[in-house]
Amino acid sequence: MNDSKVANRRQFLKKAALGSALAGSTFSLPILTQAEALGLPENLPESMRVPGADFSNYGQPSQYEKGIIRWISANPAAPGNGVSWTPLHALQGTITPNGLHYERHHNGVPDIDPDKHILLINGLVDTPLRFDLKSLMRYPMTSRTCFIECGGNSNSGWKSNPIQSKAGYAHGLVSNAEWTGIPVKLLLTEAGIKPNAKWVVAEGADASSLNISIPLNKLLDDAILALYQNGERIRPENGYPMRLVLPGWEGILNVKWLRQLQLTEQPAMSRDETSQYTELMPDGTARQFTFINEAKSLITSPSLGMMLPDNPGVYQISGLAWSGRGKITRVEISVDGGESWVDAELQGPVLDKAFTRFNLPWKWQGDYAILQSRATDETGYVQPDRDTLIKNRGKHGFFHYNAIVSWEITEEGDINHVYGYDF
Amino acid sequence: MNDSKVANRRQFLKKAALGSALAGSTFSLPILTQAEALGLPENLPESMRVPGADFSNYGQPSQYEKGIIRWISANPAAPGNGVSWTPLHALQGTITPNGLHYERHHNGVPDIDPDKHILLINGLVDTPLRFDLKSLMRYPMTSRTCFIECGGNSNSGWKSNPIQSKAGYAHGLVSNAEWTGIPVKLLLTEAGIKPNAKWVVAEGADASSLNISIPLNKLLDDAILALYQNGERIRPENGYPMRLVLPGWEGILNVKWLRQLQLTEQPAMSRDETSQYTELMPDGTARQFTFINEAKSLITSPSLGMMLPDNPGVYQISGLAWSGRGKITRVEISVDGGESWVDAELQGPVLDKAFTRFNLPWKWQGDYAILQSRATDETGYVQPDRDTLIKNRGKHGFFHYNAIVSWEITEEGDINHVYGYDF
Repeated sequence: MNDSKVANRRQFLKKAALGSALAGSTFSLPILTQAEALGLPENLPESMRVPGADFSNYGQPSQYEKGIIRWISANPAAPGNGVSWTPLHALQGTITPNGLHYERHHNGVPDIDPDKHILLINGLVDTPLRFDLKSLMRYPMTSRTCFIECGGNSNSGWKSNPIQSKAGYAHGLVSNAEWTGIPVKLLLTEAGIKPNAKWVVAEGADASSLNISIPLNKLLDDAILALYQNGERIRPENGYPMRLVLPGWEGILNVKWLRQLQLTEQPAMSRDETSQYTELMPDGTARQFTFINEAKSLITSPSLGMMLPDNPGVYQISGLAWSGRGKITRVEISVDGGESWVDAELQGPVLDKAFTRFNLPWKWQGDYAILQSRATDETGYVQPDRDTLIKNRGKHGFFHYNAIVSWEITEEGDINHVYGYDF
Repeated sequence: MNDSKVANRRQFLKKAALGSALAGSTFSLPILTQAEALGLPENLPESMRVPGADFSNYGQPSQYEKGIIRWISANPAAPGNGVSWTPLHALQGTITPNGLHYERHHNGVPDIDPDKHILLINGLVDTPLRFDLKSLMRYPMTSRTCFIECGGNSNSGWKSNPIQSKAGYAHGLVSNAEWTGIPVKLLLTEAGIKPNAKWVVAEGADASSLNISIPLNKLLDDAILALYQNGERIRPENGYPMRLVLPGWEGILNVKWLRQLQLTEQPAMSRDETSQYTELMPDGTARQFTFINEAKSLITSPSLGMMLPDNPGVYQISGLAWSGRGKITRVEISVDGGESWVDAELQGPVLDKAFTRFNLPWKWQGDYAILQSRATDETGYVQPDRDTLIKNRGKHGFFHYNAIVSWEITEEGDINHVYGYDF
């Protein structure tokens, strides 16, 4: 290892030092022309010379942002089966706007007339119940900002060679929204839970008849029958007219287009908890019912697809961290591939089982660098590096990949995805 | 006043009492048919029989929610001048989705190519600066969830008779979003602030050349040059490619399509701080520079345009509260037109200068009722009733109307907007 490449703590700028680092118009353009200084008419932009567009009943992104999209990876052999990725590399803050929330469907997005949709609660209950939307709308609601992450997110990390995809298109099967709906506990309690009920088989009203088993205790804890997403009614691809939201638990359990909760003694052993969403371990056994998404983080900027211009200087390292077990308490940044670490600033409010944005100004001096972020949650769990993850879980995993992600910065300012830590 | 109409505290259900009030399938439909209980194929909904729709690059609301729109009140004599209202009565939680954030334009929505947009900082600075988007994107960013409210929101409250508009279409010139951008202080400090600078004249790049004066201290405090709204780039109607966000201060100061910040000794005395956005007081003088939106609240459900069905029972009273001076600390609910009050539950996290959702279950017994909400903020300020507001501010106001809103529930379950408190 070349000593000169080791990260120097002075490369990271603390808040107090930031002002001086920025002093002298670090990023600004040449100063005003005389015409600009005087605001002369010939200098006014075109937008000030012509009337603007009309009001709209429902707004859309700017035409100049048409490239900011969910990237679709659909299965050509099975229409409606696949995913679309949230472009995390192009977003800021913590909320995922509804148009860009990731999708995972097994047989497409059903078209459900909300006035005809019925939710059934049956199985091991005293009184089976059925609800239409009008009756559900009378129940007390609660809001919860949390992430939902597909169990298969980031699974390209298991490949032998690092894929060269943008941050969101490799790790963006996770999104974060304010969900509002009815505590599931209220509905189950109203039906009356029989003592021998231990599981709940949730079923969606889509063409795949997706069903999956959820421990009853989770539904009695913090599960929401969500009707609203970031204030408005849930989008069709996110479960309209209603879905389960199980904060911190893998995406498939957050059943969309929910039509039935059946209380049972045993799990259903359905497709998506046996042949899928189970994990082959190094000793040949398989893990099953691995519900929780462990702590994870990702630098979204700078990241692959961007470039540091040819002038070294101050850059903002920014990214997202989240944990299915609680709040993020710490995110550390390395620019030397894990040799040394500095704490990033966490943007408040830091919420339980939700995206936390982290930031750290960094003075790039034109040297080769490997950028990494490492999250710790309130249980003390520390996000593993890739070697550790593979040591524990084997090389043939598919689900629940949460290793540290490394971005290589070349001396030219190019950015690549790498696994290596060796200089 | 009829004693039997006085609110009874038992009408409000505390958390503990809620379960028993809901017991016995209060709102659920008749129990399952045999076919439903068995999940027989002939009972499956159509959505389970046909493949669903494809993935999409950018999602849209359900076709069944086409009625949930911003309601446009444009000035026919001056195209592009007017407002569109957020349908607060149809939303839940606290985030306003980007498609439904309220609009206020003076001359339409400009079409601005972000690559050509220049932000100027000039006037009483050591070094005038100019920035393009690329240079701004290198600055450290911060996120802030806050409301923005038009100074003219709710101004129909000054009319002699209560208008019969839905909650959002009378009070929805306020929205709440997570804004992300650069602290304005960083940019001003980099330019170097001359000692005699006290005001900043902000100008937008729209055809109205909107300009307005802002005290320098506010910009040095918590102002953001916002580039992102709920995670994605700001929408055109909300200032694309960049706007000011001044948490808690009236909408017009949050200048959209920002092109210039000019530091000055005195305010510019522009149109929108002299002939508009000033307030005639009862003694004939006018208030000027009334920047802060005082504490306010609104019951969004039940509200005008909805109806309580003919069966009395438990309803959820839900609404929004906000204050330009800090956090909401208390929201009280009355169902007897202000005779008696009960504290609502505040949905956490309660954020500074942001929407706070309040909820309170209410057992409607089929009686005549007048529903009101009253907000208190952390400064101790209590939202006034309408009589008090008019006593202090006169009958000819237009801006900064924040009085308690009253919804009348008839014995038939109809809902009207009223001013009166007399039974």
